[in-house]
Amino acid sequence: MTATRSAASLDPANCCSPLANEALSEEEAERFASVFAALGDPVRLRLLSLVASADEVCSCNLEGPLARSQPTVSHHTKILAEAGLITGEKRGRWMWWTVVPEQLATIRQLLGGS
Amino acid sequence: MTATRSAASLDPANCCSPLANEALSEEEAERFASVFAALGDPVRLRLLSLVASADEVCSCNLEGPLARSQPTVSHHTKILAEAGLITGEKRGRWMWWTVVPEQLATIRQLLGGS
Repeated sequence: MTATRSAASLDPANCCSPLANEALSEEEAERFASVFAALGDPVRLRLLSLVASADEVCSCNLEGPLARSQPTVSHHTKILAEAGLITGEKRGRWMWWTVVPEQLATIRQLLGGS
Repeated sequence: MTATRSAASLDPANCCSPLANEALSEEEAERFASVFAALGDPVRLRLLSLVASADEVCSCNLEGPLARSQPTVSHHTKILAEAGLITGEKRGRWMWWTVVPEQLATIRQLLGGS
Protein backbone atom coordinates (compact mmCIF):
# COMPACT_ATOMS: atom_id res chain seq x y z
CA MET A 1 0.00 0.00 0.00
CA THR A 2 2.90 2.35 0.67
CA ALA A 3 3.93 2.22 -2.97
CA THR A 4 0.53 3.39 -4.19
CA ARG A 5 0.28 6.02 -1.51
CA SER A 6 3.60 7.62 -2.33
CA ALA A 7 2.28 8.77 -5.71
CA ALA A 8 2.59 12.52 -6.01
CA SER A 9 -0.80 12.80 -7.65
CA LEU A 10 -4.03 13.18 -5.73
CA ASP A 11 -5.75 11.02 -8.36
CA PRO A 12 -7.98 8.60 -6.40
CA ALA A 13 -7.04 5.86 -8.85
CA ASN A 14 -3.53 5.64 -7.44
CA CYS A 15 -3.95 7.17 -4.02
CA CYS A 16 -4.43 6.38 -1.02
CA SER A 17 -4.90 3.82 1.62
CA PRO A 18 -7.10 5.20 4.38
CA LEU A 19 -5.28 6.82 7.24
CA ALA A 20 -6.60 4.12 9.53
CA ASN A 21 -4.53 1.51 7.70
CA GLU A 22 -1.11 2.89 8.52
CA ALA A 23 0.59 6.06 9.69
CA LEU A 24 0.88 8.81 7.08
CA SER A 25 4.36 9.81 6.00
CA GLU A 26 5.44 13.41 6.62
CA GLU A 27 5.20 14.14 2.90
CA GLU A 28 1.68 12.74 2.64
CA ALA A 29 0.60 14.61 5.75
CA GLU A 30 1.90 17.91 4.35
CA ARG A 31 0.07 17.35 1.11
CA PHE A 32 -3.29 16.44 2.59
CA ALA A 33 -3.14 18.97 5.44
CA SER A 34 -3.00 21.75 2.87
CA VAL A 35 -6.26 20.48 1.32
CA PHE A 36 -7.95 20.25 4.73
CA ALA A 37 -6.68 23.73 5.61
CA ALA A 38 -8.40 25.02 2.47
CA LEU A 39 -11.62 23.44 3.74
CA GLY A 40 -11.06 24.77 7.26
CA ASP A 41 -12.74 28.11 6.73
CA PRO A 42 -16.52 28.63 6.84
CA VAL A 43 -16.65 31.04 3.90
CA ARG A 44 -14.64 28.67 1.72
CA LEU A 45 -16.77 25.72 2.78
CA ARG A 46 -19.96 27.59 1.82
CA LEU A 47 -18.31 28.70 -1.41
CA LEU A 48 -17.39 25.09 -2.22
CA SER A 49 -20.95 23.94 -1.51
CA LEU A 50 -22.31 26.65 -3.81
CA VAL A 51 -19.98 25.51 -6.61
CA ALA A 52 -20.48 21.80 -5.92
CA SER A 53 -24.27 22.05 -5.91
CA ALA A 54 -24.31 23.66 -9.39
CA ASP A 55 -22.84 22.63 -12.73
CA GLU A 56 -20.71 25.75 -12.70
CA VAL A 57 -20.84 29.08 -10.95
CA CYS A 58 -19.72 32.52 -12.07
CA SER A 59 -17.64 34.48 -9.55
CA CYS A 60 -20.17 37.23 -10.14
CA ASN A 61 -22.85 35.03 -8.57
CA LEU A 62 -20.91 34.25 -5.40
CA GLU A 63 -20.77 37.71 -3.82
CA GLY A 64 -24.47 37.75 -2.98
CA PRO A 65 -24.89 34.35 -1.32
CA LEU A 66 -21.59 34.70 0.56
CA ALA A 67 -22.15 38.36 1.46
CA ARG A 68 -18.53 39.04 0.61
CA SER A 69 -16.84 41.48 -1.77
CA GLN A 70 -15.41 40.30 -5.07
CA PRO A 71 -11.76 40.56 -3.85
CA THR A 72 -12.67 38.34 -0.89
CA VAL A 73 -14.45 35.87 -3.18
CA SER A 74 -11.36 35.83 -5.43
CA HIS A 75 -9.07 35.21 -2.46
CA HIS A 76 -11.09 32.18 -1.37
CA THR A 77 -11.62 30.71 -4.85
CA LYS A 78 -7.85 30.94 -5.38
CA ILE A 79 -7.17 28.92 -2.22
CA LEU A 80 -9.76 26.28 -3.15
CA ALA A 81 -8.34 26.06 -6.68
CA GLU A 82 -4.77 25.71 -5.39
CA ALA A 83 -6.00 22.86 -3.19
CA GLY A 84 -7.38 21.16 -6.30
CA LEU A 85 -10.97 21.32 -5.05
CA ILE A 86 -12.36 23.59 -7.77
CA THR A 87 -11.21 24.55 -11.22
CA GLY A 88 -11.91 27.75 -13.11
CA GLU A 89 -12.24 29.05 -16.62
CA LYS A 90 -12.12 32.72 -17.54
CA ARG A 91 -14.84 33.90 -19.89
CA GLY A 92 -14.83 37.57 -20.64
CA ARG A 93 -14.53 39.43 -17.37
CA TRP A 94 -15.45 36.61 -15.03
CA MET A 95 -14.14 33.28 -13.78
CA TRP A 96 -16.53 30.33 -13.90
CA TRP A 97 -15.93 27.60 -11.31
CA THR A 98 -16.66 23.89 -11.21
CA VAL A 99 -15.96 21.37 -8.48
CA VAL A 100 -13.29 18.66 -8.93
CA PRO A 101 -15.14 15.54 -7.79
CA GLU A 102 -11.96 13.43 -7.95
CA GLN A 103 -10.36 15.57 -5.26
CA LEU A 104 -13.38 15.17 -2.96
CA ALA A 105 -13.19 11.41 -3.62
CA THR A 106 -9.51 11.35 -2.70
CA ILE A 107 -10.20 13.05 0.61
CA ARG A 108 -13.09 10.71 1.35
CA GLN A 109 -10.83 7.77 0.59
CA LEU A 110 -8.13 9.09 2.94
CA LEU A 111 -10.78 9.37 5.66
CA GLY A 112 -11.65 5.71 5.21
CA GLY A 113 -14.23 5.76 2.44
CA SER A 114 -14.38 3.14 -0.25
CA MET B 1 -32.94 17.53 3.62
CA THR B 2 -32.50 20.82 5.43
CA ALA B 3 -34.29 19.49 8.47
CA THR B 4 -31.89 16.59 8.93
CA ARG B 5 -28.86 18.74 8.25
CA SER B 6 -29.73 21.33 10.84
CA ALA B 7 -29.24 18.80 13.62
CA ALA B 8 -26.68 20.05 16.11
CA SER B 9 -25.12 16.63 16.42
CA LEU B 10 -22.40 15.37 14.11
CA ASP B 11 -23.93 11.92 14.35
CA PRO B 12 -23.90 10.53 10.79
CA ALA B 13 -27.28 8.98 11.44
CA ASN B 14 -28.98 12.37 11.35
CA CYS B 15 -26.48 14.47 9.45
CA CYS B 16 -25.81 15.54 6.60
CA SER B 17 -26.68 15.81 3.00
CA PRO B 18 -23.52 16.12 0.93
CA LEU B 19 -22.39 19.64 0.24
CA ALA B 20 -22.97 19.02 -3.46
CA ASN B 21 -26.72 18.73 -2.83
CA GLU B 22 -27.32 22.24 -1.61
CA ALA B 23 -25.47 25.22 -0.19
CA LEU B 24 -24.38 24.89 3.43
CA SER B 25 -25.90 27.26 5.94
CA GLU B 26 -23.56 29.60 7.80
CA GLU B 27 -24.04 27.60 10.99
CA GLU B 28 -23.21 24.31 9.28
CA ALA B 29 -20.20 25.84 7.57
CA GLU B 30 -18.86 27.14 10.91
CA ARG B 31 -19.28 23.74 12.51
CA PHE B 32 -17.63 21.70 9.76
CA ALA B 33 -14.90 24.23 9.04
CA SER B 34 -13.66 23.81 12.59
CA VAL B 35 -13.30 20.06 12.03
CA PHE B 36 -11.44 20.58 8.75
CA ALA B 37 -9.22 23.18 10.41
CA ALA B 38 -8.28 20.54 13.00
CA LEU B 39 -7.26 18.26 10.11
CA GLY B 40 -5.44 21.08 8.34
CA ASP B 41 -2.12 20.59 10.07
CA PRO B 42 0.43 17.94 9.05
CA VAL B 43 1.41 17.00 12.60
CA ARG B 44 -2.24 16.54 13.59
CA LEU B 45 -2.95 14.53 10.48
CA ARG B 46 -0.05 12.18 11.22
CA LEU B 47 -1.16 12.00 14.86
CA LEU B 48 -4.69 11.09 13.76
CA SER B 49 -3.36 8.39 11.43
CA LEU B 50 -1.26 6.95 14.27
CA VAL B 51 -4.33 6.81 16.53
CA ALA B 52 -6.67 5.59 13.77
CA SER B 53 -4.35 2.79 12.71
CA ALA B 54 -4.22 1.34 16.24
CA ASP B 55 -6.90 0.27 18.71
CA GLU B 56 -5.70 2.94 21.09
CA VAL B 57 -2.50 4.88 21.59
CA CYS B 58 -0.88 6.25 24.73
CA SER B 59 0.26 9.88 24.54
CA CYS B 60 3.59 8.53 25.72
CA ASN B 61 3.91 6.61 22.43
CA LEU B 62 3.25 9.61 20.18
CA GLU B 63 6.33 11.71 20.94
CA GLY B 64 8.70 9.35 19.14
CA PRO B 65 6.86 8.86 15.84
CA LEU B 66 5.89 12.54 15.63
CA ALA B 67 9.30 13.80 16.80
CA ARG B 68 7.51 16.33 18.99
CA SER B 69 7.67 17.11 22.71
CA GLN B 70 4.91 15.99 25.05
CA PRO B 71 3.46 19.53 25.41
CA THR B 72 3.22 19.76 21.62
CA VAL B 73 1.59 16.32 21.43
CA SER B 74 -0.89 17.41 24.12
CA HIS B 75 -1.68 20.62 22.23
CA HIS B 76 -2.51 18.69 19.08
CA THR B 77 -4.47 15.87 20.75
CA LYS B 78 -6.57 18.54 22.49
CA ILE B 79 -7.48 20.15 19.16
CA LEU B 80 -8.35 16.79 17.57
CA ALA B 81 -10.45 15.84 20.62
CA GLU B 82 -12.30 19.18 20.57
CA ALA B 83 -13.09 18.52 16.90
CA GLY B 84 -14.61 15.18 17.90
CA LEU B 85 -12.07 13.19 15.88
CA ILE B 86 -10.43 11.36 18.79
CA THR B 87 -11.46 10.64 22.34
CA GLY B 88 -9.23 10.09 25.35
CA GLU B 89 -9.18 8.30 28.67
CA LYS B 90 -6.74 9.07 31.45
CA ARG B 91 -5.08 6.07 33.04
CA GLY B 92 -2.52 6.87 35.66
CA ARG B 93 -0.20 9.52 34.31
CA TRP B 94 -1.11 9.20 30.63
CA MET B 95 -3.96 9.80 28.24
CA TRP B 96 -4.93 6.95 25.93
CA TRP B 97 -6.52 7.96 22.62
CA THR B 98 -8.89 6.25 20.22
CA VAL B 99 -10.34 7.47 16.93
CA VAL B 100 -14.05 8.39 16.65
CA PRO B 101 -15.06 6.58 13.43
CA GLU B 102 -18.49 8.22 13.40
CA GLN B 103 -16.89 11.64 13.04
CA LEU B 104 -14.77 10.48 10.10
CA ALA B 105 -17.94 9.03 8.55
CA THR B 106 -19.77 12.35 9.01
CA ILE B 107 -17.02 14.23 7.20
CA ARG B 108 -16.93 11.66 4.40
CA GLN B 109 -20.69 12.02 4.06
CA LEU B 110 -20.45 15.80 3.86
CA LEU B 111 -17.90 15.37 1.08
CA GLY B 112 -20.32 13.26 -0.89
CA GLY B 113 -19.70 9.77 0.46
CA SER B 114 -22.51 7.31 1.00
